Amino acid sequence: MSENKIPYKIYLDESEIPSKWYNLRADMKNKPAPLLNPATCQPMTAEELSGVFCEELVQQELDDTTPYIDIPQEIQDFYKMYRPAPLVRAYCLEEALGTPAKIYYKFEGNNTSGSHKLNSAIAQAYYAKKQGLKGVTTETGAGQWGTALSMACAYLGLDCKVFMVKVSYEQKPFRREVMRTYGAQVTPSPSMTTEVGKKILAEHPGTTGSLGCAISEAVEVAVTNPGYRYVLGSVLNQVLLHQSIIGLETKAALDKYGIEPDIIIGCAGGGSNLGGLIAPFMGEKLRGEKDYRIIAVEPASCPSFTRGKFAYDFCDTGMICPLAKMYTLGSGFIPSANHAGGLRFHGMSTTLSQLYHDGYMEATSVEQTEVFEAAEQFARVEGILPAPESSHAIRVAIDEALKCKETGEEKTIVFGLTGTGYFDMVAYQKFNDGEMTDYIPTDEDLAKGLSSLPVVPDQ
Amino acid sequence: MSENKIPYKIYLDESEIPSKWYNLRADMKNKPAPLLNPATCQPMTAEELSGVFCEELVQQELDDTTPYIDIPQEIQDFYKMYRPAPLVRAYCLEEALGTPAKIYYKFEGNNTSGSHKLNSAIAQAYYAKKQGLKGVTTETGAGQWGTALSMACAYLGLDCKVFMVKVSYEQKPFRREVMRTYGAQVTPSPSMTTEVGKKILAEHPGTTGSLGCAISEAVEVAVTNPGYRYVLGSVLNQVLLHQSIIGLETKAALDKYGIEPDIIIGCAGGGSNLGGLIAPFMGEKLRGEKDYRIIAVEPASCPSFTRGKFAYDFCDTGMICPLAKMYTLGSGFIPSANHAGGLRFHGMSTTLSQLYHDGYMEATSVEQTEVFEAAEQFARVEGILPAPESSHAIRVAIDEALKCKETGEEKTIVFGLTGTGYFDMVAYQKFNDGEMTDYIPTDEDLAKGLSSLPVVPDQ
Repeated sequence: MSENKIPYKIYLDESEIPSKWYNLRADMKNKPAPLLNPATCQPMTAEELSGVFCEELVQQELDDTTPYIDIPQEIQDFYKMYRPAPLVRAYCLEEALGTPAKIYYKFEGNNTSGSHKLNSAIAQAYYAKKQGLKGVTTETGAGQWGTALSMACAYLGLDCKVFMVKVSYEQKPFRREVMRTYGAQVTPSPSMTTEVGKKILAEHPGTTGSLGCAISEAVEVAVTNPGYRYVLGSVLNQVLLHQSIIGLETKAALDKYGIEPDIIIGCAGGGSNLGGLIAPFMGEKLRGEKDYRIIAVEPASCPSFTRGKFAYDFCDTGMICPLAKMYTLGSGFIPSANHAGGLRFHGMSTTLSQLYHDGYMEATSVEQTEVFEAAEQFARVEGILPAPESSHAIRVAIDEALKCKETGEEKTIVFGLTGTGYFDMVAYQKFNDGEMTDYIPTDEDLAKGLSSLPVVPDQ
Repeated sequence: MSENKIPYKIYLDESEIPSKWYNLRADMKNKPAPLLNPATCQPMTAEELSGVFCEELVQQELDDTTPYIDIPQEIQDFYKMYRPAPLVRAYCLEEALGTPAKIYYKFEGNNTSGSHKLNSAIAQAYYAKKQGLKGVTTETGAGQWGTALSMACAYLGLDCKVFMVKVSYEQKPFRREVMRTYGAQVTPSPSMTTEVGKKILAEHPGTTGSLGCAISEAVEVAVTNPGYRYVLGSVLNQVLLHQSIIGLETKAALDKYGIEPDIIIGCAGGGSNLGGLIAPFMGEKLRGEKDYRIIAVEPASCPSFTRGKFAYDFCDTGMICPLAKMYTLGSGFIPSANHAGGLRFHGMSTTLSQLYHDGYMEATSVEQTEVFEAAEQFARVEGILPAPESSHAIRVAIDEALKCKETGEEKTIVFGLTGTGYFDMVAYQKFNDGEMTDYIPTDEDLAKGLSSLPVVPDQ
């Protein structure tokens, strides 16, 4: 093993960290459909969006023609604190599987937020600071995004208000404390600090909250407090833009050793990691320069790509956000309570949805028990305890490597290891105790979710 | 900042990872005193030690003349999964402090065990495997060492039995689940699975256990089960030997950029990190080639260096292990229950004790509230959420940097950042809530602990 020319971990030099983000939309012939104002069903204007989002982020959200966008020096400096992220050759996993396939993973978990979310959090916080804002608001479920945003805001001296779904706030106190350590104000949602929170609590006393409700509270605070804006960790075009750093670094590391991937695999919830990882590879594919097999992996319990509908829908369960055209299960769809593996969003990035619709990528869904089996196998040989989300990609990477074992093909597989599972030990415990179960929604379950789709006139 | 020639993170190439450990004892004129058999007060022989420890580890434990010892290829391969560890230039901390000092830290937390403990765990597991053993036993308190050992054993296919202090087993279920995910058998101690456990439970029904009791159970299982040996994560000479990889990498990274440290700072519990970090620097000092200020930092609530006695003592509270000559507070000393910051061992590595006794290093103690203040400040500007243990070193590094600010001196400070605090959020919560208190043992408290010292005839 040690004679191999390719090291276990390929690190770029700091000077090789990309200085521009890549805007995948610039190379798409069929652009992602615009966000619509739910009241008028007309495309949201920059002015409308800038009441909620920072101005420069609005520009990034709407820009589907500029291929490369400079990363401000301050963000580049922050990136140097935890980037470049290593591209790891999974020698030990390959050996354990006995596969001729060559497996690589881009590991984004080597920072305190524990995931790739920090790549966009620092960008969004930076533009808020640059605009002279006092702070930002957001919602968080399990807390990965909230943690990343807290870290970015602490670094920039920006106020950070996080609405954390009450059930998570109570059941995941450690994530909450990480955010507080970084100076964030963490409020269990629904709360009595907002009008919408009060209303929900009056209607549903004792509710443990939902992501949709937390979004509503965060947006209300952003639009009613001068000097505040709302930020979001996935789904949006701007997020995919910032996350392109993952794919750009991956490609630079592969190029350094002349490695050509055959298959690129990413887990998909709202699409932030997948969109970032595949960006430069998809760009080559769109421009007809190269071909890759690109696979999105989603949970069988929340299968927006594989069983959802490509249609305009609300991004939030509270139905206050703009409409986005995407693969969706309906904004009323909520994954089964037994689902422990993350990636719970009912919809999908509009950019990725368009690419999938146009046949540029595949999608597959996996059940959570087999996901945790892959996670455990990976942890034991590769050392890293993966996040449940990331383990969806591990599952499919292992399956593809085992297919290579059967056929004898020496394919090169690259997957995104988005983060670590240190704050997901409740789910691991369930798995260790043999108490984890699977759930696949019935066609009736899905029909119920899709019945909430808004009626939107043809564009 | 970005123009600076020294990068944020200095990574060695994989080929530059040291292939030999450095045995500090070889360069000591006054060797550390030998371990004694408590029954005879005579030096423990290799034969006596090999009933408890693996044979090759016994050789390493007793070898105080060979300066460099080859790292077996299998261990080097494992090291490549998470090493080299970065040496980080703390640009952001320097800026926040406004100090002319140059601060570097060696970060050992980028692996799932969350600390440097893995460096010795893989070595000890490897030699057990090589000897043809079935498995190893150990004890763990908070779980850092147990996690590291579980990872190493999973990698090598070795059975791993961990006795975890019952109160931690119940209050730190996440560390327990990480160990189980790596296939370890984790038993709350005291347990009904050992004779000593049964005895203790009969005498103290409902006890929540202690480290001393867990050691006794682990040793009993090792010596009564064919094919098992006991392993330990700190204090021992062999552990310091394996941990020298920290210092060797640090020195190689500094040399790469021609950096000469003035001050080297490490936190000290049993001494595994401190001994490893300072090893090559101390070697230069012992050989009269260079001079460095070397500072050990310990908690004020468990001050073995600064307020203990240099004497023979038991390493365990159960008084079944060999006697070691070290700075000790007495094997009966237990830090105050309010102590959240780790580094709870009553004694100290015999090697470090001898060096301190001979004037080659300084020691200082800090209180836990100021330690968490430093931890929070560090986390907010440097991104990494540090372990409470590591934060002792951060506290003193910041204090030294602030002294430089006063004097205008551009000193170069290097400290060991041993690990991350992801499983220590209960302590952080206490700090965030303003409920953390300090405790300094009175002279009477210390006298009580020291009253348990064994009477050992002059050697």
